Amino acid sequence: MKKYSIGIDFGTLSARAVLADVSSGEIMASDTYEYRHGVIEQQMPDGTRLPEGFALQDPGDYLEAVAALVPGLFSLAGISAEQVIGVGTDFTSSTMIPVKKDGTPLCRLEQYKNRPFAYAVLWKHHASQKAADQINEKAEETGQKWLDRYGGKISSEWSIPKLLQMYEEDQEIYEQTDVWVEAVDWIVWQLTGIENHSYSTMEFKAIWDQKEGFPAQEFFRKLAPGFEKEAVKKLGTNFLPQGVKAGGITPYMAQVTGLKEGTPVSSGIVDAYACLPAVGIDGPGKMLLIVGTSVCEILVEPEGKDVPGLCGRARDGILPGYYAHEGAQSAGGDILAWFTKECCSGEMEREAEKKKISLHTLLTEKAARLRPGETGLLALDWWNGNNCLLDDMYLSGMIVGLTLSSKPEEIYRAIMESIVFGSRVNVEQFQKHGILVEQILAAGGICKKNELMMQIYADVLNMPVYVSDAEQGPALGSAMFGAVAAGKKGGGYDSIYEAVPKMKAPVEKIYDPVPAHVKIYDELFLEYKKLHDYFGCGGNDVMYRLRHMKTGKCVTNKVSGF
Amino acid sequence: MKKYSIGIDFGTLSARAVLADVSSGEIMASDTYEYRHGVIEQQMPDGTRLPEGFALQDPGDYLEAVAALVPGLFSLAGISAEQVIGVGTDFTSSTMIPVKKDGTPLCRLEQYKNRPFAYAVLWKHHASQKAADQINEKAEETGQKWLDRYGGKISSEWSIPKLLQMYEEDQEIYEQTDVWVEAVDWIVWQLTGIENHSYSTMEFKAIWDQKEGFPAQEFFRKLAPGFEKEAVKKLGTNFLPQGVKAGGITPYMAQVTGLKEGTPVSSGIVDAYACLPAVGIDGPGKMLLIVGTSVCEILVEPEGKDVPGLCGRARDGILPGYYAHEGAQSAGGDILAWFTKECCSGEMEREAEKKKISLHTLLTEKAARLRPGETGLLALDWWNGNNCLLDDMYLSGMIVGLTLSSKPEEIYRAIMESIVFGSRVNVEQFQKHGILVEQILAAGGICKKNELMMQIYADVLNMPVYVSDAEQGPALGSAMFGAVAAGKKGGGYDSIYEAVPKMKAPVEKIYDPVPAHVKIYDELFLEYKKLHDYFGCGGNDVMYRLRHMKTGKCVTNKVSGF
Repeated sequence: MKKYSIGIDFGTLSARAVLADVSSGEIMASDTYEYRHGVIEQQMPDGTRLPEGFALQDPGDYLEAVAALVPGLFSLAGISAEQVIGVGTDFTSSTMIPVKKDGTPLCRLEQYKNRPFAYAVLWKHHASQKAADQINEKAEETGQKWLDRYGGKISSEWSIPKLLQMYEEDQEIYEQTDVWVEAVDWIVWQLTGIENHSYSTMEFKAIWDQKEGFPAQEFFRKLAPGFEKEAVKKLGTNFLPQGVKAGGITPYMAQVTGLKEGTPVSSGIVDAYACLPAVGIDGPGKMLLIVGTSVCEILVEPEGKDVPGLCGRARDGILPGYYAHEGAQSAGGDILAWFTKECCSGEMEREAEKKKISLHTLLTEKAARLRPGETGLLALDWWNGNNCLLDDMYLSGMIVGLTLSSKPEEIYRAIMESIVFGSRVNVEQFQKHGILVEQILAAGGICKKNELMMQIYADVLNMPVYVSDAEQGPALGSAMFGAVAAGKKGGGYDSIYEAVPKMKAPVEKIYDPVPAHVKIYDELFLEYKKLHDYFGCGGNDVMYRLRHMKTGKCVTNKVSGF
Repeated sequence: MKKYSIGIDFGTLSARAVLADVSSGEIMASDTYEYRHGVIEQQMPDGTRLPEGFALQDPGDYLEAVAALVPGLFSLAGISAEQVIGVGTDFTSSTMIPVKKDGTPLCRLEQYKNRPFAYAVLWKHHASQKAADQINEKAEETGQKWLDRYGGKISSEWSIPKLLQMYEEDQEIYEQTDVWVEAVDWIVWQLTGIENHSYSTMEFKAIWDQKEGFPAQEFFRKLAPGFEKEAVKKLGTNFLPQGVKAGGITPYMAQVTGLKEGTPVSSGIVDAYACLPAVGIDGPGKMLLIVGTSVCEILVEPEGKDVPGLCGRARDGILPGYYAHEGAQSAGGDILAWFTKECCSGEMEREAEKKKISLHTLLTEKAARLRPGETGLLALDWWNGNNCLLDDMYLSGMIVGLTLSSKPEEIYRAIMESIVFGSRVNVEQFQKHGILVEQILAAGGICKKNELMMQIYADVLNMPVYVSDAEQGPALGSAMFGAVAAGKKGGGYDSIYEAVPKMKAPVEKIYDPVPAHVKIYDELFLEYKKLHDYFGCGGNDVMYRLRHMKTGKCVTNKVSGF
């Protein structure tokens, strides 16, 4: 009897589930479920306006997704529950849920259903930038050592800035929150009934370390008087490395999903990290590149290097025995989507309709006919702030070189190039700090769909880019961790290193750098860096001041010059 | 019997003619004629590709316009030729035509009909930037005094750079050119049979001065060996001040137009300058603002000040007895038009269609709901280069502050504001050099149509803006000069100062500055200036380098840093 494992990948707008053959990694069935409430941005479900920068979700949507997807897989593949040996899940990271001791989200309690902070605070909620600024400032002031692990700066997306914002803006919800849990861990808690906090999120996003634990209580006190009393307690106590079993499916969840009670569930993992084994990364030198709405670059190395400015490192956070590092860009496909929605001519839309292709496809086709440099344009890819080296949500997008003959496909290509330049900043930072990057393994929708962008990646990074065939990389990776949770005895594998060669997705296409392009992009990248430093490193703080004028609020202590 | 005068205004894409009542200025009839060949840009009529930056016209179109428009006015107004006492014409300036001694354009000769340089070279032909750079460099090197009259720099749009380009790129056409004539003067030549070169174009655009004449022959030699031999001769010898009679309608033209033979024709004038009397400017302190495809600011003063960086001054060039000054911006409405064509969403287009309004109207309505600063965006209005202070066609547009929630109307408003900031640069330069600016008189399509933009002008300049009712300011002004050409004896006026109070158009609307807006725009203008200096004054020559990459050509000696 064939054995299968299930991987469920919780994204920003939907969840995807796959059923994978444990012996080959072949996907036997897959399905997607769109969240009913999507992203709660400008207003609450009851119509209350939300302040700028808020991005919430209803955690009920995650459970609805599980209930809708898992039973569907059985019928799609025509298999029985006995054949499923394990389940793995992955989630957007830094999506935080305030819950009671039993795991009930506060927004499920009638009295709090209209309180923004009672909901899941999505990764891209950037209203906590002020809190992040406070933390960074105090950390620097007091010489916090942990700052080095995170490249000298922590992000507004992470759990503690979000908790501090809640503490300062809604005391009651803060007090009612027993556990401030990553959605990554909450979903595993719901499936298994056991509260656990996974290494990958704690180390990468919660300023926690296997040796050092959390920052000292004194530090929390300095952030806000009284904050030290409960904050650490709310962040959790049970920590779990990646690639182990977190528990078994509860009787209730067995009923909801059709899975057998007790089916092993792996410890939760951040979506992007789940992708590493899926594309076949099982050691140093290979960098995972995911280009989706945002972009990230992930790799492992054996020594635990500090990389100033990058998002952080986590020991055993993805692959046991290695330090995992992550570079990230706060926007990628998001900017291209913004462009097609807000900034691309009706004429172009009609042309795409006529040709029965998407606007993205049409723009890419036209952009592909241009040679590197031919647009005459250069952009800074900071439409959603910068969370690479600069880690600053108040930065914004810029484009220079516009003329009366600039065409939509030229702007589109310039945006694409700026995203790739953003990646090169991260890659160079890794290399500069002694971490090997020799090969790019790319996954994610845009990597499979957009040949032009992959060629630009190869040309800008001057490195071959291997695009993985993984249709749903994170979900496949989760299924692999599910198989590891089952263990060899349970029909799976004893470690992720055993699972990788068996279950990884094949390479679909290889892009090699074109030397003539490499040369031009080297020049253009110098220009990018110069503008990067001018707008992002104190040459001209106009981006802050513009945001200040827009919101009427002083967004940062960097606003000066009035 | 009522007396009338005719004004014909030759624009970039069409010509407009008005028949005005000499006693009141009332427009009795008006009509427009679109040029058959429009602007000849990317390719010649026979399909030959044109190099980047070329912008040509077929001068035959101008005569077709006269033949089509004038007879139409008679029938529209139901009057006879006896009632028309004078004709005035105005033209885009710096539109140059290579002609034989008898006025025949070279492109009319069979053997040259496929030669780009045989056509009219339109004002916005910017392929002569290299020639302009050469001239500026040599002029600075050799300490040419006339440089001060033009603010230290001459523009690639002007006649001598264009002639030098021709000399260097098509010797044969250069040799065949007997006269290198402004279209402004060519059309008067066609109407009257007499070759004249008007003060306004010669002083403003041909480095000629009543006292000093042209630059020395030696200077022409330094530009290119041999160029000194014929260049000055081609530029003309008969010079005519504004507001005088250039001649009378020829028998042939009487036949073509239905005008009486000998009807007085005034000396030609640049389109924008004709507008001053039309809006009622007859002395210092009042600045004419025209916002069309491009923007200009024009005023007069009694002393002949030098204004570094502005386009130049001309004695008696508009109003006799005064020095006229012009500030200009190489793009205005053009950028907004580019935006609606290339960069505005299909969604917005459909909304405009549904509401049965233009995209410009819809965007303006939405933009008007934002408060100053609320866009969070700031642009440099250099989509077509900069011909204000920097006078550099290689500069390009820039926009900063973009986010994933930036809306088309926000970008549209930011472009609008950048155009107004460009005007403020000019106004401040006038004021800094002792020229009075107390009041803005605005004319041109956008000024009448776009209330938001006029309010932004009042707020940014902190000055009242009077929008003239003049439907067709330049054409009315030309009709006024036509009445002056007739003189009192001929049923008109002896000077433009007599004509202004009688014939000027009434003020349609006054915009007063809003103090709260003034304050915000003062801040935003500081930001504009900072970026202006960074990108335009050597802080970062990225705009040159991007253009270099785009065209593959080294566009200027400023390209460095590779």
